[in-house]
Amino acid sequence: MAVYTELAAETLEAFLGTYDIGTLVSFHGIAEGVENSNFLLRTTEGDFILTLFERRVNAAELPWFLGLMQHLAGRGLNCPLPVSDRSGTALRSLADRPAAITTFLPGVSATQLDAKLCLELGKVLARLHIAGEGYDAVRPNALSPAAWGPLLESCGESGDALSPGLTAEVRKALQNVEAAWPVPDALPRGQIHADLFPDNVFFQNGQVSGLIDFYFACTDFLAYDLAICLNAWCFRDEKTFEPSFAAAIIQGYESIRPLNDTEKAALPTLCQGAAIRFLLTRLYDWINTPADALVTRKDPLAYLRRLRHFQSVSHV
Amino acid sequence: MAVYTELAAETLEAFLGTYDIGTLVSFHGIAEGVENSNFLLRTTEGDFILTLFERRVNAAELPWFLGLMQHLAGRGLNCPLPVSDRSGTALRSLADRPAAITTFLPGVSATQLDAKLCLELGKVLARLHIAGEGYDAVRPNALSPAAWGPLLESCGESGDALSPGLTAEVRKALQNVEAAWPVPDALPRGQIHADLFPDNVFFQNGQVSGLIDFYFACTDFLAYDLAICLNAWCFRDEKTFEPSFAAAIIQGYESIRPLNDTEKAALPTLCQGAAIRFLLTRLYDWINTPADALVTRKDPLAYLRRLRHFQSVSHV
Repeated sequence: MAVYTELAAETLEAFLGTYDIGTLVSFHGIAEGVENSNFLLRTTEGDFILTLFERRVNAAELPWFLGLMQHLAGRGLNCPLPVSDRSGTALRSLADRPAAITTFLPGVSATQLDAKLCLELGKVLARLHIAGEGYDAVRPNALSPAAWGPLLESCGESGDALSPGLTAEVRKALQNVEAAWPVPDALPRGQIHADLFPDNVFFQNGQVSGLIDFYFACTDFLAYDLAICLNAWCFRDEKTFEPSFAAAIIQGYESIRPLNDTEKAALPTLCQGAAIRFLLTRLYDWINTPADALVTRKDPLAYLRRLRHFQSVSHV
Repeated sequence: MAVYTELAAETLEAFLGTYDIGTLVSFHGIAEGVENSNFLLRTTEGDFILTLFERRVNAAELPWFLGLMQHLAGRGLNCPLPVSDRSGTALRSLADRPAAITTFLPGVSATQLDAKLCLELGKVLARLHIAGEGYDAVRPNALSPAAWGPLLESCGESGDALSPGLTAEVRKALQNVEAAWPVPDALPRGQIHADLFPDNVFFQNGQVSGLIDFYFACTDFLAYDLAICLNAWCFRDEKTFEPSFAAAIIQGYESIRPLNDTEKAALPTLCQGAAIRFLLTRLYDWINTPADALVTRKDPLAYLRRLRHFQSVSHV
């Protein structure tokens, strides 16, 4: 967790002068997100989040992300709404970085998950998928199965130091998942969040009050987003699968958007794929992040356990 | 800048349940302060800062600091007001750390200083000193001249790597300052902030809207607090002394609390002492902080330049 860029009040005040959102009352760098610098702004008109895009996010893709958030917010989803300046531009530049102001969302992330929260998560995921309809620009998933092989090979055998035999095990799993992966038109596609972990979901009074961090969003199988959530929300202590959580997510999802039989049948494969995707990016970061760096490294093995779980089931 | 402790929403909600300040709407770790973990809380009643005290701050001294802030706020100074729980207790424990909730102060720190801001700073410093009257508990200054010698010696000759001859130069300066330092009853004493750098002063519309970070406050010469501000506010780019800034701080200060002749005469010595104090703690941190650590190291040499400046003047 880090704020990468420091910002002078005078710089920010001048920047805000080009918007119609009041004058600066206070601002604080917030320790959230590892990819970007985020500031909580209070102006005389309200609260906002200012994001300076630091790295990983490709600046050329920012209009797609901001456009998606505008589309989703316009269709009633509680996601950050990019705010345009007086000239109508939402994507700006500040401190030599791409920058955007969005609305502030109330609510807090849950760390003690339960089936009720999972039910609400499932509902909002389906609402997100429906709200994404009509946003026709396609952003291919940069972390799709085609990317996993090269990512695994770029890690060499380093994973074996974490768990003996890991590289061979993941290589085999990847072959199986690639062979079973649905062809592009086999399942309903649309805009997916692709990173809807508990820290990206705000709750208030047991209801979802906001979804944040859309910078992995892309166009892919809707059911793959569900598979990511089943990975991210259903393992207690990063270890033990909680069938009641998974059932609640699916129940919530289907109460808004029922899955078809092909999606249901594909879920174990999609869940294995999602486990591989997070295993590989965590492994890559593990290898490439110094142990004492600013960013907390996340344990790749938590996803090896998930992978093995989803390999062991015939339906989720 | 760092949040050291992560906090679960559920933990915080339970904690807030023992206060009468509403229920949790949102909270964000803010990237401010290197000593403690700070969170900006929004409740249904308003905004607050939650501080978890991490280190350096001696827990046994926290009641003194919180009591000082209550005293100062009660006398109209815009400083964080510690909020008591239903049982009347302000100093609590959360996540195995001492913890306190205070009121949130609007405003932003200035980075582009000018004489007008310095004038306001001088006024508020004098107001702080007057507001401190009547708070009779004494907290000796742990970073007084008596502490500087041992601090310098604990750094060995490491400073010479930063600037050849630094250790001998500071040792000599320290001897001179110690010899010239006023005896305890020579100058008016009281509660001082002792760390009133620009980041600890919030402005709004050119007026001081808040003073924060009282965890170096102590009982010492009032004029020494002024000397710290003259060090902290009057060197452009950490290099060039700005006489107009210094004159404005003193003018602002004296418009509220005139200095007596002994204080005026002592200022060059007090300013040299303040330069030594920050030089030494920065040097100590420089040596003891890994270059790639979470905390940004501050250049000790910026205070060697200040020391030399204040050695060269007969009055400030």
